[in-house]
Amino acid sequence: MPELRKDPIVGRWVIISTERAKRPDQFGANFDPGPQELTPCPFCEGNESQTPKEIFSLRPKQAPANSPGWELRVVPSIGPFLRIEGSLDRRGKGVYDLTNGIGAHEVVIETSQHISNMADLPQEQILKVINCYIDRINDLERDKRFKYVLVFKNYGWTAGGSMIKHAKSQLIATPVNPKRVKEELAGAKQYFDFHERCIFCDLIKQELDSPERVVLDIDGFIAVVPFAPRFPFETWILPKKHSCDFAALENQNRGNLAEILRRVLLKLKTGLNDPPYNYVIHSAPFRRAKAGYWKSIDQDYHWHIEIIPRLTRVAGFEWGTGFYICPLSPEDAAKFLREVNA
Amino acid sequence: MPELRKDPIVGRWVIISTERAKRPDQFGANFDPGPQELTPCPFCEGNESQTPKEIFSLRPKQAPANSPGWELRVVPSIGPFLRIEGSLDRRGKGVYDLTNGIGAHEVVIETSQHISNMADLPQEQILKVINCYIDRINDLERDKRFKYVLVFKNYGWTAGGSMIKHAKSQLIATPVNPKRVKEELAGAKQYFDFHERCIFCDLIKQELDSPERVVLDIDGFIAVVPFAPRFPFETWILPKKHSCDFAALENQNRGNLAEILRRVLLKLKTGLNDPPYNYVIHSAPFRRAKAGYWKSIDQDYHWHIEIIPRLTRVAGFEWGTGFYICPLSPEDAAKFLREVNA
Repeated sequence: MPELRKDPIVGRWVIISTERAKRPDQFGANFDPGPQELTPCPFCEGNESQTPKEIFSLRPKQAPANSPGWELRVVPSIGPFLRIEGSLDRRGKGVYDLTNGIGAHEVVIETSQHISNMADLPQEQILKVINCYIDRINDLERDKRFKYVLVFKNYGWTAGGSMIKHAKSQLIATPVNPKRVKEELAGAKQYFDFHERCIFCDLIKQELDSPERVVLDIDGFIAVVPFAPRFPFETWILPKKHSCDFAALENQNRGNLAEILRRVLLKLKTGLNDPPYNYVIHSAPFRRAKAGYWKSIDQDYHWHIEIIPRLTRVAGFEWGTGFYICPLSPEDAAKFLREVNA
Repeated sequence: MPELRKDPIVGRWVIISTERAKRPDQFGANFDPGPQELTPCPFCEGNESQTPKEIFSLRPKQAPANSPGWELRVVPSIGPFLRIEGSLDRRGKGVYDLTNGIGAHEVVIETSQHISNMADLPQEQILKVINCYIDRINDLERDKRFKYVLVFKNYGWTAGGSMIKHAKSQLIATPVNPKRVKEELAGAKQYFDFHERCIFCDLIKQELDSPERVVLDIDGFIAVVPFAPRFPFETWILPKKHSCDFAALENQNRGNLAEILRRVLLKLKTGLNDPPYNYVIHSAPFRRAKAGYWKSIDQDYHWHIEIIPRLTRVAGFEWGTGFYICPLSPEDAAKFLREVNA
């Protein structure tokens, strides 16, 4: 019997339908490789002149900017979706609303080596990437035009990856709060108003008490397949200690985050034949104390990372309803990932 | 300069970013054909024994059920996402909610001939499909367990189409209202509460007054590229006369709907090299008069069809924000589709 499960935060129903079942390991097959890789790779060390001028870099030996000798670089996107210069100029047009596309769009080049999957980076390098995310978020927060920075990764062609197959993530700062984040904030607030507890904290407690959906449980962090996943092997990483703000993560806990992120990505790569995936970091919007309707956000929201392997196709039912059909139970997905030796 | 545009109904922002611009006709190329077609086709006339027993058929010469001599058939899905038998049994599990996966999942076989794209069916045949949708919705509405029926189509592999390449659509009846439809209902109600007018009616009037996004304008219906489209060439078909209920469409107007649907699909096929696409019909939920928070729905909601060609990839930014990046302006998309001779 299929089950309808409700995401406890945003209220999205998901159909867990295993009638057309595959075994978990059968999901990892035949990914579209996309067009041929761009060569020479503009993100490799030595090819700095092929990118826009760097915004940030890690240079342990103080080599000059835009030259070799770096461990990590941040550059503006060559095809930015939003422009940094200008004013918002929000305006109406009959029933419609629009603003200028002001924002920032940056690319984090995660390594100087030509490695494509973050799963293959050493933990210390992933820690540098996390530190860099936090530095960039803190810098972008100073620009009063921006309300949010989304950190995300597109790995593999089907997941929106590009012809540059070199480990990278992206940051987009937006002048409006994302709809998805607002939905989470509203759902978490509703739960908090009733229970006076954070729903994410309750969820973590329940998952640890009955760990059938837990993929990894390490010091400070948990990786779980959510109760109502949209996609097979969808996995969330949550800090066990309550915090609404990813950028407030203490230095001493960042190594653990690097560890759990690397291990989850490596389990996906090893167990599912190197699948395309996305991840997104969901954190509280900027200047949240003044943000009116989510005044209590420090108590009720909880930052987390959502990792989405792209193994199934999204079709009319999903577009039409906003519900998802997941052809693998999250308990089976978690068991499979737990058992992958990585 | 890119623009941020807001969908006036659900409040979703869309980035219209033409920096990485392609010409409109360059979007139609290289679609993944998917795995090989299933042969012999179980949906062709003569192969009735290869489908589950029919729920409905059009048989002008009264041939017996499940035999040749039909113009259109409806059969249960062979891999249904929801099951028709049983009770909902809605229950909690700590912080989580679930119910049994009760629902109906039916396939409308749109023709007895082996034609794959609805665009290639004669208008009279599309009229039969529309009549059939309405008959099936009215029948499913009688089952008090169901709150909604989504009618949708997946054409082409990337759009979630199957190995049976024979024109078909699907109906899924759900025991809960779709999130996407609830968002539209809530947005339309908010507008109505303020203006005492239907937002869709206002939108139609504005589009007709300044028709730069109009693709087709025929008796009773309009096809427009929305002001804030998620995807290039996304097109909505709306009835000009206010109505919240697709299934209440009068007999004498159904032929016009068949005409505009066929012409839009044929323009997409001709202009964009037969792309994969989805469409969904958004109509008011069942038993709406009693549905509490959308009491005024007869006045403020307006049924419509959303057609989504699948020409771009959805990536981390979209999953993380619920916003979309559309690399083609809707005005250019509409101009291109208007000029396609089909």
